Amino acid sequence: MVNTGDTAWILVSAALVLLMTPGLALFYGGMVRAKSVLNMMMMSFGALALISVLWVLYGYSVAFGNDVGLGLLGNPGEFFGLAGLMEDTTSADGGLPAMAFVGFQAVFAIITVALISGAIADRAKFGAWMVFAGIWATIVYFPVAHWVFDFSLEDHVGGWIANDLAAIDFAGGTAVHINAGAAGLALALVLGKRRGFGREAMRPHNLPLVMIGAGLLWFGWFGFNAGSALAANNTAAVAWVNTLAATAAATLGWLLVEKLRDGHSTSLGAASGVVAGLVAITPACSAVSPVGAVILGVIAGALCALAVGLKYRFGFDDSLDVVGVHLVGGLWGTIAVGFLADPDAPAGVESLLFGGSVDQLWRQVVGALAVLVFSFVLTLVIGFVIQKTMGFRISEEDEITGIDTVVHAESGYDFASLGSSGSTAPLAGQARAEARNTERTLA
Amino acid sequence: MVNTGDTAWILVSAALVLLMTPGLALFYGGMVRAKSVLNMMMMSFGALALISVLWVLYGYSVAFGNDVGLGLLGNPGEFFGLAGLMEDTTSADGGLPAMAFVGFQAVFAIITVALISGAIADRAKFGAWMVFAGIWATIVYFPVAHWVFDFSLEDHVGGWIANDLAAIDFAGGTAVHINAGAAGLALALVLGKRRGFGREAMRPHNLPLVMIGAGLLWFGWFGFNAGSALAANNTAAVAWVNTLAATAAATLGWLLVEKLRDGHSTSLGAASGVVAGLVAITPACSAVSPVGAVILGVIAGALCALAVGLKYRFGFDDSLDVVGVHLVGGLWGTIAVGFLADPDAPAGVESLLFGGSVDQLWRQVVGALAVLVFSFVLTLVIGFVIQKTMGFRISEEDEITGIDTVVHAESGYDFASLGSSGSTAPLAGQARAEARNTERTLA
Amino acid sequence: MVNTGDTAWILVSAALVLLMTPGLALFYGGMVRAKSVLNMMMMSFGALALISVLWVLYGYSVAFGNDVGLGLLGNPGEFFGLAGLMEDTTSADGGLPAMAFVGFQAVFAIITVALISGAIADRAKFGAWMVFAGIWATIVYFPVAHWVFDFSLEDHVGGWIANDLAAIDFAGGTAVHINAGAAGLALALVLGKRRGFGREAMRPHNLPLVMIGAGLLWFGWFGFNAGSALAANNTAAVAWVNTLAATAAATLGWLLVEKLRDGHSTSLGAASGVVAGLVAITPACSAVSPVGAVILGVIAGALCALAVGLKYRFGFDDSLDVVGVHLVGGLWGTIAVGFLADPDAPAGVESLLFGGSVDQLWRQVVGALAVLVFSFVLTLVIGFVIQKTMGFRISEEDEITGIDTVVHAESGYDFASLGSSGSTAPLAGQARAEARNTERTLA
Repeated sequence: MVNTGDTAWILVSAALVLLMTPGLALFYGGMVRAKSVLNMMMMSFGALALISVLWVLYGYSVAFGNDVGLGLLGNPGEFFGLAGLMEDTTSADGGLPAMAFVGFQAVFAIITVALISGAIADRAKFGAWMVFAGIWATIVYFPVAHWVFDFSLEDHVGGWIANDLAAIDFAGGTAVHINAGAAGLALALVLGKRRGFGREAMRPHNLPLVMIGAGLLWFGWFGFNAGSALAANNTAAVAWVNTLAATAAATLGWLLVEKLRDGHSTSLGAASGVVAGLVAITPACSAVSPVGAVILGVIAGALCALAVGLKYRFGFDDSLDVVGVHLVGGLWGTIAVGFLADPDAPAGVESLLFGGSVDQLWRQVVGALAVLVFSFVLTLVIGFVIQKTMGFRISEEDEITGIDTVVHAESGYDFASLGSSGSTAPLAGQARAEARNTERTLA
Repeated sequence: MVNTGDTAWILVSAALVLLMTPGLALFYGGMVRAKSVLNMMMMSFGALALISVLWVLYGYSVAFGNDVGLGLLGNPGEFFGLAGLMEDTTSADGGLPAMAFVGFQAVFAIITVALISGAIADRAKFGAWMVFAGIWATIVYFPVAHWVFDFSLEDHVGGWIANDLAAIDFAGGTAVHINAGAAGLALALVLGKRRGFGREAMRPHNLPLVMIGAGLLWFGWFGFNAGSALAANNTAAVAWVNTLAATAAATLGWLLVEKLRDGHSTSLGAASGVVAGLVAITPACSAVSPVGAVILGVIAGALCALAVGLKYRFGFDDSLDVVGVHLVGGLWGTIAVGFLADPDAPAGVESLLFGGSVDQLWRQVVGALAVLVFSFVLTLVIGFVIQKTMGFRISEEDEITGIDTVVHAESGYDFASLGSSGSTAPLAGQARAEARNTERTLA
Repeated sequence: MVNTGDTAWILVSAALVLLMTPGLALFYGGMVRAKSVLNMMMMSFGALALISVLWVLYGYSVAFGNDVGLGLLGNPGEFFGLAGLMEDTTSADGGLPAMAFVGFQAVFAIITVALISGAIADRAKFGAWMVFAGIWATIVYFPVAHWVFDFSLEDHVGGWIANDLAAIDFAGGTAVHINAGAAGLALALVLGKRRGFGREAMRPHNLPLVMIGAGLLWFGWFGFNAGSALAANNTAAVAWVNTLAATAAATLGWLLVEKLRDGHSTSLGAASGVVAGLVAITPACSAVSPVGAVILGVIAGALCALAVGLKYRFGFDDSLDVVGVHLVGGLWGTIAVGFLADPDAPAGVESLLFGGSVDQLWRQVVGALAVLVFSFVLTLVIGFVIQKTMGFRISEEDEITGIDTVVHAESGYDFASLGSSGSTAPLAGQARAEARNTERTLA
């Protein structure tokens, strides 16, 4: 019998996480120059379309099929085409329909792929990106999701990080953020720097769009984190509050670093701080207390605010800071579990600072590094093969013209019809009402 | 006693579907020229305001009151002003408060009316649109909702398509999409073409706005489709996954047609493909398997990508493709149930390709055509009467000036205060940080 | 044992209300001039970050700790750092995890603070705003939340308005809207008028952004109002429908006043009408019938449409109408309970027009005035102290340059990379397809 409350929560959470990918498209899209906004958004929408179909066909089965050996891979044939999952098989004491879990996990696969695109803004062929997305999901994400998210049951054998290593990764610090961040680094290296990188300032063309994206990401992330309880229970509620607390603290942390370093707090900093906090609390949200989440968050915000400068120092064009935010934030959050986990939190895990030993810490480190190395190496290989065969990068001439025009035959904006009257001519309405009221006041 | 899980799910789903109308306003608003964006959005917001009030007063009663004869109309007096529905009358074995159902169905009425406005962009008087919206909801939508969505119970007689014809329309392929699409066609004919239609390219003025709209529509559509299970159960979960699968596949289908036909995949195509997939899976989401949804979706995307060219061939100015996407997609999805329904899916219906006969197919065709003809004919009549009495279309001079200025005394955008400094002057903040880091790198 | 349906509903509602603050940032951001959009949004995002952390540290405890005397204040030490709230202590007959309530109430605190910022657009130092936000939340909001939202239980003593006065304020007409509105008035007086106020029209720079904000606010408000039932039950469902009905009616009311007064209905009016309706139904949504909600709403829309002119008459620069919408709308909604409450509604309260006496009416008036006076006086004091010490307002020169550039070292938009080609050059894609189809048609 289906537990309707848990099912309602997971279906909503899945929709919330689905919304994160369009939210990411806006967040990323606003950060690039106006001539690249559409291509930036298309990488997210393209991933959304492609990975959803692959998930239905074989992705779910690779991630959550019975392990084929060593905890590395699920059986691709077991649920091919989601076979056999339409039936309601929940037990008498309440449960979640299999399809609710399928949908919830699908949107994690989608957003992980989409996140990578921020590292290669303005310069990737759309077709090559789509090929990359499909291959990367197949040989990197689906297996890693099996490692991290597939827990063994009486009649089911899952992945090695979740079960053998027993690292804590509640909602995907390793599988999603370290994974995407390492892949972003590799891909930025494969594609090389944008023309003018480090010489010209490449300012965001539409910061309100970035803020819309950040708002939708935060909103959706409650599904991501609190939904990962897979039930509407106390664990979900604690994860919810921790997701608020850490994210808020990270935003403060980022803004403070900016203020002290540059003399100004920026809206780009606020939006980035939001995402840094969300990333860092993702693996830890069931394992720390709200005060722990504040500490974890403020460090995450400060750390990532500093880390986004690395690309200039080391000269890799991680255009929209996938490395500085997702890799660094994901590493910090995953490892912080080893320091800050509170045994009174739902996960019930001890950490170095809360009565424990280094036991949890090394598990966190191993899990984090395993995903980092696996993702980085495989992404390098996939990227180079695509670069050498079909080509991954657009020509320098096309980069100057702008990728939206060249690749998509579109332009993000066209305000020409407003003419000069759009911005200067006196209008009636509000202006008229204001004017009339003003006259009364002045009279 | 209220089933809290089902109630939570339906209240959330209702909010999700409510969000679709502002989402539609953005989707449509971004597609018109900058001088018409506000009027485009106002048609959605105006419908939202007006239809909600009519729904409370008598709309719900016409749609879900006891049938007054032949399955054509509910009794308008039974729930006038929602009388008697505030009390909790759920039975001992769990149920949904009546008001949750009232709210969920309200938002379907709203969006159906709002969808029509895409066919008459840039040229309709706002007052005339509001009059049209009220009349159309009253004599077209409320009755058709009764036909399709009002199922008979022991002590209640519902509509003819749901009960006598027994066509499958899980979430409104006929009542919402064919209905709005046929009305859009009729209204485009009544109002005639925009000045310059077919001669000037009328490019979308703000494609990121279109993408925001598409994202919100997809997000909200999970409430639309999976919420139509009226419970947080296995059916809802299957509908959820099918809504993901078909939409993703349709997006791929649309992009592929564009790539092959035009040499480019566009962001407008991606956004349109999303909506085409959502439309097509709407009637079918409880009746097909996820693999069936992928097939249904990819065909929907390709079909609608081709169908949006019809308006140029036949010379009707369905400005934002209400016909090409909602009428064509709705017809395909409704009829596809007759081919692709899988008896293992929750609806448990056999179809031509899955062990069945033409039995379900003809029911689907009859239901689809009945709504199409009813809506088209009545809309033609309503439109002509408004045109001949109060006038429906603005003057040519006003169309050139732009409908936002003339009708609403507003302009969508005013970037004048940024001056040239907004786009060219060197700024501190991120740019400064970049510069400093660059210097370090270069040093 | 946790009631999963109620928990799902409250976790979703909390996320919905969280989304309202980014939504407000867009709503406000679109209304100012392009050179101030980022600062406007930053006041909301800054409040979001700061108040969340304060809430975790001591805010929740001040609001919902055991009363320390006279119903004025909760014990700040009781739940300091949310101590003791991570454990699941729900009773055997079902309940809500404490943390779900903590999260749900957190987002109310956040948005109340953010609302105030609309009164001081374009001219407040960001650092001073953050200091103000922290102090105001601490000595105004947290206590008032205790007064209004903290109900006494067997082993818990709550606040005076909820328990001693027994005024009806279902979701925060007093604690949120009158509170923020009165504070906005006080702060507008402290900071003084913008340069050019009443002489120059200060038109919204991006009305589609305002509409996005209004849409997200409406969507989130279902969590605000219907979530305030703290359960997924019949009361929540009635509150949901009333939130739809009143908001729709208020939008119609506002548009009608505009049409009659100015000759045009505007999109700014529609967006403002939406918010006015939402504000007014907030305290009353459990106490009136849907028809009562329509009446309450249409009056709210008309009243606020008139009230926003007061600032010109009296010469205070409440820039984005926090007074005209939130104070006036909040007062009307709170007092309207005394006239329009229907004993058949879930709250079961009689009112003057529905079989009752003035008993409920005077309670509503006293509650409303108490919060108004308390908030106005304390805000004046806080504002003046900040003004005299660190300074609250930027210099006139900086105001002319634009606060985004000066304070945040950023600019909202940069479309320069599009060049003229962005708006005028012929593009392929859609335009090409249109052209080709046109040729066919013309041939």
